[in-house]
Amino acid sequence: MTPIDFRTEPGRYRHWRIVLEDEIAFLVMDVDPAGGLSPDYELKLNSYDLAVDIELNDAVQRLRFEHPEVRAVVIKSGKENVFCAGANIRMLGKASHGLKVNFCKFTNETRLAIEDASKNSKQIYLCAVNGTAAGGGYELALATDHIMLVDDRRSSVALPETPLLAVLPGTGGITRVTDKRKVRRDFADVFCSTEEGVRGQKAVDWRLVDEVIQKSKWDETVKARARELAARSDRPRAAQGIKLTPLDRKISDNGITYPHVRVEIERERGLATVTVRAPTRAAPATLEAAHALGAFFWPLAFARELEDAILHLRVNEPAIGLVVFRTEGDAQSVLDHDAFLAHNQDNWLMREVRHYVKRVLKRIDVSAKTFVALVEPGTCFAGTLAELVFASDRSVMLVGKRDGDNRQPAAIALSEANFGFYPMGNGLTRLQTRFLGEDESIERAKAKIGAPIEGKEAQELGLVTFAYEAFDWDDEIRVMLEERASFSPDALTGMEANIRFAGPETMETKIFGRLTAWQNWIFQRPNSVGEKGALKLYGSGVQPTFDRERV
Amino acid sequence: MTPIDFRTEPGRYRHWRIVLEDEIAFLVMDVDPAGGLSPDYELKLNSYDLAVDIELNDAVQRLRFEHPEVRAVVIKSGKENVFCAGANIRMLGKASHGLKVNFCKFTNETRLAIEDASKNSKQIYLCAVNGTAAGGGYELALATDHIMLVDDRRSSVALPETPLLAVLPGTGGITRVTDKRKVRRDFADVFCSTEEGVRGQKAVDWRLVDEVIQKSKWDETVKARARELAARSDRPRAAQGIKLTPLDRKISDNGITYPHVRVEIERERGLATVTVRAPTRAAPATLEAAHALGAFFWPLAFARELEDAILHLRVNEPAIGLVVFRTEGDAQSVLDHDAFLAHNQDNWLMREVRHYVKRVLKRIDVSAKTFVALVEPGTCFAGTLAELVFASDRSVMLVGKRDGDNRQPAAIALSEANFGFYPMGNGLTRLQTRFLGEDESIERAKAKIGAPIEGKEAQELGLVTFAYEAFDWDDEIRVMLEERASFSPDALTGMEANIRFAGPETMETKIFGRLTAWQNWIFQRPNSVGEKGALKLYGSGVQPTFDRERV
Repeated sequence: MTPIDFRTEPGRYRHWRIVLEDEIAFLVMDVDPAGGLSPDYELKLNSYDLAVDIELNDAVQRLRFEHPEVRAVVIKSGKENVFCAGANIRMLGKASHGLKVNFCKFTNETRLAIEDASKNSKQIYLCAVNGTAAGGGYELALATDHIMLVDDRRSSVALPETPLLAVLPGTGGITRVTDKRKVRRDFADVFCSTEEGVRGQKAVDWRLVDEVIQKSKWDETVKARARELAARSDRPRAAQGIKLTPLDRKISDNGITYPHVRVEIERERGLATVTVRAPTRAAPATLEAAHALGAFFWPLAFARELEDAILHLRVNEPAIGLVVFRTEGDAQSVLDHDAFLAHNQDNWLMREVRHYVKRVLKRIDVSAKTFVALVEPGTCFAGTLAELVFASDRSVMLVGKRDGDNRQPAAIALSEANFGFYPMGNGLTRLQTRFLGEDESIERAKAKIGAPIEGKEAQELGLVTFAYEAFDWDDEIRVMLEERASFSPDALTGMEANIRFAGPETMETKIFGRLTAWQNWIFQRPNSVGEKGALKLYGSGVQPTFDRERV
Repeated sequence: MTPIDFRTEPGRYRHWRIVLEDEIAFLVMDVDPAGGLSPDYELKLNSYDLAVDIELNDAVQRLRFEHPEVRAVVIKSGKENVFCAGANIRMLGKASHGLKVNFCKFTNETRLAIEDASKNSKQIYLCAVNGTAAGGGYELALATDHIMLVDDRRSSVALPETPLLAVLPGTGGITRVTDKRKVRRDFADVFCSTEEGVRGQKAVDWRLVDEVIQKSKWDETVKARARELAARSDRPRAAQGIKLTPLDRKISDNGITYPHVRVEIERERGLATVTVRAPTRAAPATLEAAHALGAFFWPLAFARELEDAILHLRVNEPAIGLVVFRTEGDAQSVLDHDAFLAHNQDNWLMREVRHYVKRVLKRIDVSAKTFVALVEPGTCFAGTLAELVFASDRSVMLVGKRDGDNRQPAAIALSEANFGFYPMGNGLTRLQTRFLGEDESIERAKAKIGAPIEGKEAQELGLVTFAYEAFDWDDEIRVMLEERASFSPDALTGMEANIRFAGPETMETKIFGRLTAWQNWIFQRPNSVGEKGALKLYGSGVQPTFDRERV
């Protein structure tokens, strides 16, 4: 099978158009029915599969980096009378359980990236629902800050998954209805069980949309609202964007190579080693120099490669359950780049870079793989790269040196980046999550910013799980990885999903923790995916037969 | 099949002993291996099934009501060298998916009742782990406020579900480890994947237990700690408990009858109608009179019957997916009882009653059934009983009167009980959850306390979903119930679990929403329940075979 490729660019889009009008961008959904990942289904009525969402993800990303001048983004449909029919049902009916789950995960990340753009990049999204928005179509609208619905006595918003397909809306719909839009729970219940959805004034009264607009005033009102949102943005009017140049990637049977990231796959062990390289040049001296580097500015460059590697491992290497993080290069250079980011935090591009690294790290947090960080001599888990240690399920550090190795003992170093640059989905930094209820441990760590922290001290500070002498290292690591690989992949996924997010819950953790878990359960149940289930029979004319037992 | 009966009393216990020593109660677990619900398995090593937990639930409940003098409760094992081996694995291996899920739900509710007793009844639990506590055994300990582990170089605490059985701990273990005890996430990861568990000082260092005690000092230290906890209690020293007399219940093929609750089952429609009767006598004039009524005090009496009915419907009537709530009797009498509870809120027994009604209502919130409240002439959804309207997924109210019916139009009435007596698992009242972000709606409702609120006004205040004229009523109700019954039971369960708990998350909502959902998913996966799965093969000597795909 051809691996699924997450790389794309506007010139290759088949499903979206970006139309720029000064400070406003129109993101026009116009799905090519024949442009899905598989010829098994047609993407009718602006329904989508992963191919469509890969382009959307790319568009959202590029608008942030390539178009600082864009202050508001309008999502609309390029088709008549239909906004978007949601995830393609034939695709879902044929997809394996794993693909369904991965598809939902990625689309959820993209919707959250839209919310992140509105909130943190002040590139504020509104949705112009110029036709019916059903299921994933309405969920796309829910990810924006303002939902407008055309009042043509026909266009509606709907979450018909339960009555129609016997599944849940898979992209955060219920959580956003109850928690973001605060639709009253009984109205939410009625809405989520009404196949035809809700339209007109009722949609406003129930808070499902923000306004309904007559067709005759549609275009002008949409533009007026977009201008109002744009006026709330702090994005610079005269800045130049940077180009997100194509990723330089070589895939072989046993790995992937990028300039700053290397993935080595050992299939027998179910293991991938992901090595991230520190910058090979010094941090830029000026903001102008950083802008000139563009996509080659190290934090952005390594993050793009790491993101691509993580997505690839998720979707194309499901049997690889274990990911080992390594780093190599000069720790000081990483710290210098962190200091540069901190010093220039008010610059729009540096802000984009930080929020982007944050989103890439979050992809790790919700990946169904075990992550282990190995901190050895020659590694450079410093500042931003130390987040890989804190994102890992376990971390192990070598104490002292190995015989015949002249390098310095392994060390971790902290920077300001570890204390606020990259909050997790629960709203806390990885160190805050790690030290829940232990403010003094965070303060002790903070006092060490910039200093190399060797094995025993790192363990005492609680920064790594275990520290081993060279004598024990090989056996301990081998046993740990073999043992992990022997456990049930499903139990590990559930265990990690529960252990990784201690403390507060947010809409984001609710979406990935609560809603997704229920959806995954339902995606296994015969009532939806069995031969007589609703998802399998949809469109066949045959009614599903349900086991009526309530569980 | 004999229906599972949740009613029991200490004289009939086969698995637990209550030993009273003044202000301290010892709750001694000593499971009869032959005393399980089914002869298919033996409950060795203090492992448990639902029969054991039904007794535990009863004991926790009786200690609160029957023993005001008990200020601390010590859970310990009556067996040598083993505290509790957790849920019986052969039982889990043979149980249907539905029974596993219902079993976990009930045991979770019992653990939460223990925490509720410590916190809100000041009957403070400690766990004396005098032997190995594995899986559900350790989860029982986690529900207490203080965990003591004997230091005999052998006894450990463990959550071996993932390595041993390819499932998750099913009774809140992971959530309490990370969020209650704040075990660091990497230690939690190691702990949850270590079959043999953790013992001695390391268990203290990782915060898995509060202290380890040498065997020679065990008994005296346990008692000393229990006395310390007792000293923190505000329970009255001289009060007399009340007796929880056996429930008067008649089960027939099509229903159940109790003095204040009636259940009518229509199997064709998949529907049960639960009717709750208002008190038939006036609220007591004095606290002494209320104490003298004991289990016949109306709020306590109806709550015990309603709880039994809900548990019965859950476990013994899985094909009944729809529950319609009705009430009958005198609304004013309900309001008078609420006023009595409010006026005497400092009395220990009234406090118990309120917290108990709270727990019964919470059982509704987490039940996998659709609840609909029908508010018609002759009903009395007032105060405490109005919570049934707010706990329902939808509520429908009749406007005006029916032809030939001389009764007053249907009315809802609010009391102080609706504004703080009965918080949900998310920490909010049902009205706060309903009106999330709408403080003004709560204030408008509060201004109506005591007044009858008829159909149109109730709808305007947002207290009911729909209000229909008599002319439309029959058709609207019929269509609504038929439509609901036609949907996939699984999709409804997932949808309701997500819609019912808007707003903040707590450990409790995490346990029922996040952890339970993942466990339910895993309980469906071949890696645990398939013919080659770990749960099926446990104890057979055959190693499980796992599909290695990570999802």
